[in-house]
Amino acid sequence: MRISELARESGVPLATVKFYLREGLLPPGRRTSATQAVYGPEHLSRLRLVRALVDTGGLSLARTRAVLAGLESPSLFDAVGQAHGALGDEPDDVDTGRVAQLLARLGWTGVDERCPAARRLAASLAALEDVGLTMSEDHLLAYAAAARAAAEVDVASVSTDSPTDAVTTVVLGTVLREPVLLALRRLAQQSQAATAWAHGAGNGRSPVT
Amino acid sequence: MRISELARESGVPLATVKFYLREGLLPPGRRTSATQAVYGPEHLSRLRLVRALVDTGGLSLARTRAVLAGLESPSLFDAVGQAHGALGDEPDDVDTGRVAQLLARLGWTGVDERCPAARRLAASLAALEDVGLTMSEDHLLAYAAAARAAAEVDVASVSTDSPTDAVTTVVLGTVLREPVLLALRRLAQQSQAATAWAHGAGNGRSPVT
Repeated sequence: MRISELARESGVPLATVKFYLREGLLPPGRRTSATQAVYGPEHLSRLRLVRALVDTGGLSLARTRAVLAGLESPSLFDAVGQAHGALGDEPDDVDTGRVAQLLARLGWTGVDERCPAARRLAASLAALEDVGLTMSEDHLLAYAAAARAAAEVDVASVSTDSPTDAVTTVVLGTVLREPVLLALRRLAQQSQAATAWAHGAGNGRSPVT
Repeated sequence: MRISELARESGVPLATVKFYLREGLLPPGRRTSATQAVYGPEHLSRLRLVRALVDTGGLSLARTRAVLAGLESPSLFDAVGQAHGALGDEPDDVDTGRVAQLLARLGWTGVDERCPAARRLAASLAALEDVGLTMSEDHLLAYAAAARAAAEVDVASVSTDSPTDAVTTVVLGTVLREPVLLALRRLAQQSQAATAWAHGAGNGRSPVT
């Protein structure tokens, strides 16, 4: 299809499609003349991916590019690591001692205590401590159990029939399911708050007593 | 204390402290002359809050301001709702039908199916569908159970002795514990991936077979 059809089919404005091409987020089409190129279904699905990462995932163009690069990884484990690494600039100078202890206590083997996610966790725990909201060991263990339950179903849902599909599922699932988990936590908090703190459930006006 | 001491004590650069004052993120100090003002411990703790929201929470100044406004709310339930509302520009034109069904199935009462978190969830599910990663009912229920478990310990950890402290804990906990949950999910995925997909746990190099 022509670039104009690609834009129409995907619902992405033509100028944006051209921008993604220039930025290398979308591979070039097959040239049919000096000024014309045609695009296939692989361009359409790549375009949908980019939109999902940018719009739903809220990623910058640089991070989107890094996550897409992870799709080329030959190993699922590496793809997950690369996707996590692409998601944020994690602080280097953070003390991951408490995280290492937690990982050991949880028995989560195969995890590098200096990986980006571990550094992010350590920095978040330190920030909570700074504002007087130190997370207790029990609170953290409950979070870990919840995170583990979500990760188990994530991993179980990956079909290993096609390595390429599996990597795509893992990398995108990491990014695109995060807002799902966060939104559900917020809804659960609201439901909990309505029943635990309100005298009439859901009236939303009862002050703390 | 003087503004220079406030900066030193908090570790926030003086220019940034002045910027926060101008932007209204930090209330003015008590004037002692036409050009001097003094600041108290409440300024120090507010400054730490602002830094945590901006640095750890990754919030823009506008969102930080909105979250801080939530601290003035007289009701915990309202404070939670306001904090959630302040966290993102949620799409208005999203179909929340599937979310409403899910909430009913989960028995999560007291939750408005058109609230920001519900719209965020609906938009995220639609985006996953667009890229061919539709979340199954079972996957979603597992996520909901995990989110519920995290929310339960969040709500249980709130002391209701002081309404102001409770609101602060809830609002900041909503924002600042999200990176903790996400980081733990990533670590759990890595641990799961190492054991489920690798032939030798933790070697991190086994390709999908």
